[in-house]
Amino acid sequence: MQSIDLNCDMGEAFGNYPMPNDDILMDYITSANIACGFHAGDPEVMQHTVNMAVKKGVAIGAHPGLPDLQGFGRREMKISPKEAYQITLYQIGALSGFVKVANGKLNHVKPHGALYNMAAKDALLAKAIAQAIHDFDTTLILYALAGSEMIQAAKQIGLITASEVFADRSYQDDGSLKPRNQENALITDEQESIKQVLMMVKQQQVISVNKNIIPLKAETLCLHGDGVHAVDFAKNISAKLKAEDIEIKAPKS
Amino acid sequence: MQSIDLNCDMGEAFGNYPMPNDDILMDYITSANIACGFHAGDPEVMQHTVNMAVKKGVAIGAHPGLPDLQGFGRREMKISPKEAYQITLYQIGALSGFVKVANGKLNHVKPHGALYNMAAKDALLAKAIAQAIHDFDTTLILYALAGSEMIQAAKQIGLITASEVFADRSYQDDGSLKPRNQENALITDEQESIKQVLMMVKQQQVISVNKNIIPLKAETLCLHGDGVHAVDFAKNISAKLKAEDIEIKAPKS
Amino acid sequence: MQSIDLNCDMGEAFGNYPMPNDDILMDYITSANIACGFHAGDPEVMQHTVNMAVKKGVAIGAHPGLPDLQGFGRREMKISPKEAYQITLYQIGALSGFVKVANGKLNHVKPHGALYNMAAKDALLAKAIAQAIHDFDTTLILYALAGSEMIQAAKQIGLITASEVFADRSYQDDGSLKPRNQENALITDEQESIKQVLMMVKQQQVISVNKNIIPLKAETLCLHGDGVHAVDFAKNISAKLKAEDIEIKAPKS
Amino acid sequence: MQSIDLNCDMGEAFGNYPMPNDDILMDYITSANIACGFHAGDPEVMQHTVNMAVKKGVAIGAHPGLPDLQGFGRREMKISPKEAYQITLYQIGALSGFVKVANGKLNHVKPHGALYNMAAKDALLAKAIAQAIHDFDTTLILYALAGSEMIQAAKQIGLITASEVFADRSYQDDGSLKPRNQENALITDEQESIKQVLMMVKQQQVISVNKNIIPLKAETLCLHGDGVHAVDFAKNISAKLKAEDIEIKAPKS
Repeated sequence: MQSIDLNCDMGEAFGNYPMPNDDILMDYITSANIACGFHAGDPEVMQHTVNMAVKKGVAIGAHPGLPDLQGFGRREMKISPKEAYQITLYQIGALSGFVKVANGKLNHVKPHGALYNMAAKDALLAKAIAQAIHDFDTTLILYALAGSEMIQAAKQIGLITASEVFADRSYQDDGSLKPRNQENALITDEQESIKQVLMMVKQQQVISVNKNIIPLKAETLCLHGDGVHAVDFAKNISAKLKAEDIEIKAPKS
Repeated sequence: MQSIDLNCDMGEAFGNYPMPNDDILMDYITSANIACGFHAGDPEVMQHTVNMAVKKGVAIGAHPGLPDLQGFGRREMKISPKEAYQITLYQIGALSGFVKVANGKLNHVKPHGALYNMAAKDALLAKAIAQAIHDFDTTLILYALAGSEMIQAAKQIGLITASEVFADRSYQDDGSLKPRNQENALITDEQESIKQVLMMVKQQQVISVNKNIIPLKAETLCLHGDGVHAVDFAKNISAKLKAEDIEIKAPKS
Repeated sequence: MQSIDLNCDMGEAFGNYPMPNDDILMDYITSANIACGFHAGDPEVMQHTVNMAVKKGVAIGAHPGLPDLQGFGRREMKISPKEAYQITLYQIGALSGFVKVANGKLNHVKPHGALYNMAAKDALLAKAIAQAIHDFDTTLILYALAGSEMIQAAKQIGLITASEVFADRSYQDDGSLKPRNQENALITDEQESIKQVLMMVKQQQVISVNKNIIPLKAETLCLHGDGVHAVDFAKNISAKLKAEDIEIKAPKS
Repeated sequence: MQSIDLNCDMGEAFGNYPMPNDDILMDYITSANIACGFHAGDPEVMQHTVNMAVKKGVAIGAHPGLPDLQGFGRREMKISPKEAYQITLYQIGALSGFVKVANGKLNHVKPHGALYNMAAKDALLAKAIAQAIHDFDTTLILYALAGSEMIQAAKQIGLITASEVFADRSYQDDGSLKPRNQENALITDEQESIKQVLMMVKQQQVISVNKNIIPLKAETLCLHGDGVHAVDFAKNISAKLKAEDIEIKAPKS
């Protein structure tokens, strides 16, 4: 039986600023990537989100980001591999405390935003992040862009990986994502998105922007947590996958 | 044989701002309370300081503070017990990652600055902090002001405690510290300080500002890490204690 | 003709976190107190909000808060009068740049949250804040709690003041607000709120929780900017005041 | 008579972390670039530094940086021109409040660290920063790297500029600085540094790393504020320039 993980960035509220979809989305996802206070999240939000994930049986991941709350971790910062190692380790550790007291288990790590994107292309950053995860706990799974340097670096070090794909992003012939600032980067039609997901999950392939069929490893699908359609899309894709006899479950080490 | 622990707040550098005495002091202390990024410290400083402590065989403690970098965690903030629990847990977790990858062992927790002082008097804050430590790891030792609500709360919950005393602060008849903003709060003469330490360690007593002899539990002595005389005092008190056949060692659980 | 100012805390978005009511509320208020980056707001939000206020002809005020983004400036911090002076001055200056380039005019200052509340009762903090405002620009108007130390301190120094009243808070016999954590502190019924506002504006009186009639200076009414009912209440109170021939306008120096 | 300005980055202390040379250096410099709280500095430090500069007759400049306290504003961040405009304007405004209450005059703006370096090469960032300065006050002078995009952008918009040169950095044939991470980037011999300065000031030329004579506009010389030799070098270069009948003075608009 085919299967896919549905992951979502969670716990990205901060202080007085809520992320109202979070609690609802927990019913549709199998993996929660929980912000750790650098790009979003704070100790209160982290504890709430971890507790909710434990209650709902959702796999818990750390979601470390760049130290840039105002930019939501989306602005590239020139950090050294050593800094990448240290901020990753700090954030995994910080989240692990809440997981521990909730009698949960830390399952995975997925870097956030610009850290995710920079490490997808930069082998040294990728290696540093993979090393931090491995040094903390060799059984943690790295969630990262399918075909990226991150997946490479993790495999080399012996980390289990989950290759991540996107429902609403178009792919280029080399399997990379079309950059957001280019035309047709986003798939805005929901039916198109669902079609792409089904093809990725069932055939491990995607149709590129140039209409070529491209192989693509699809182990975990990223769902968006914000926006008005986030909950609807989560419901719809979840129902559709089940209707196609695709099991929705988190990767386990 | 009598013994005392010498603890010092360490890792309170931040980014470009150094704490130049830290590495030297590691040779004279037995417990390092390492800042966790809220009132001071950052991931790089934390990793460096943990590694140094492991290398020198110094017991490692988390030193959680209020989220107030500009105020160095010394300005009281009205936080709820729940917030105290969460910021303590977050910071212990964050430090624990660096301890883990250094093959070290987290030995204790000592709250910092205003958090330490508020919890010394406020039973609810004290209980919340003790609970966070206990929930993270029941074998951690709480370092807190001798005779404080913190010590009380920790004992009630089954945590091991180390009662902290000060070389350069004068004590009131009830065993509490004379507030810093009052006259004669600080003992500036080094010989006076050393005399007070020896009496506290050997007789578990101190002479109050009113010249009364007060019982006082002295299990760990706080050394200051900053200032030009910090290293000299650490050397001198260390030599003096050894000369008096007092063993200098960290409490262990 | 009687008149009242309708003020609202604005620009309290931050980075990725919106405050969706802000632009709409600009149509109903006469004074915008704009956050300056310490408790909320950031340079982008500040510029947007200032520009919107200029466009809509709404009086612009600085809304300085404590340096506590996570606590939204609502947690008391023990700061010295000197620190209060400096953080107030910093934030007024920061906002003034955006006002200048928008060809606007800085009209007033209203401290935020815990800074507002602490200074309402603490004469030294009140004096320091009033002094910072006066030193920056003697023509700025201080918006502060009717009957508070802030109003006192401002008057003594020669600042123009606007006494602030609340639609949804109940008052005690001495004219102070019933603390939020006590019973009946909040007036949840909209008709009750409107009734209280009309009495305050028309008669400069309020009925206390003990059913006594209390004199109260009402020059500016605080409207809330967040919550689902914020826009509705702004519309309703605005319509009601106009229907009663009460002019809605900002105080000017 | 030839002249040169001696500028130094000042007010880069933060909270508990001092910059001990600052007060002494004020006696040797003619322009102080004062940090504004983003990469360093805080309201207390800013007020102290502004007051000191006014007292000593040193020209006051804003020294805006990237919002990265931990990285001291030295890590490049991918910010948009709009963000560069807004953070520059915010920081100039914030500093201007302290200048105003000290009865001083804001003379110039010099971007800091990575913001300075990015804008030296990126015409759009350069234009945005120049625009922010111009919009705030058309009489402000921009201090920026000689021959950079910043100088270009400022001139185009009508801002007065001061071309900055360095005593301890080696220059390439195109007049740009040799990158710090390359060999021979730094001139560590003080006599070499002084020689370079005198040639730059007297002949408006510099000898490149390839031993070619390069034209270079030298209007303001950057002195370092930290490090053990900072004060000595300031004294020595100041004495040497005077001995050569070169006037040391700040550019004025």
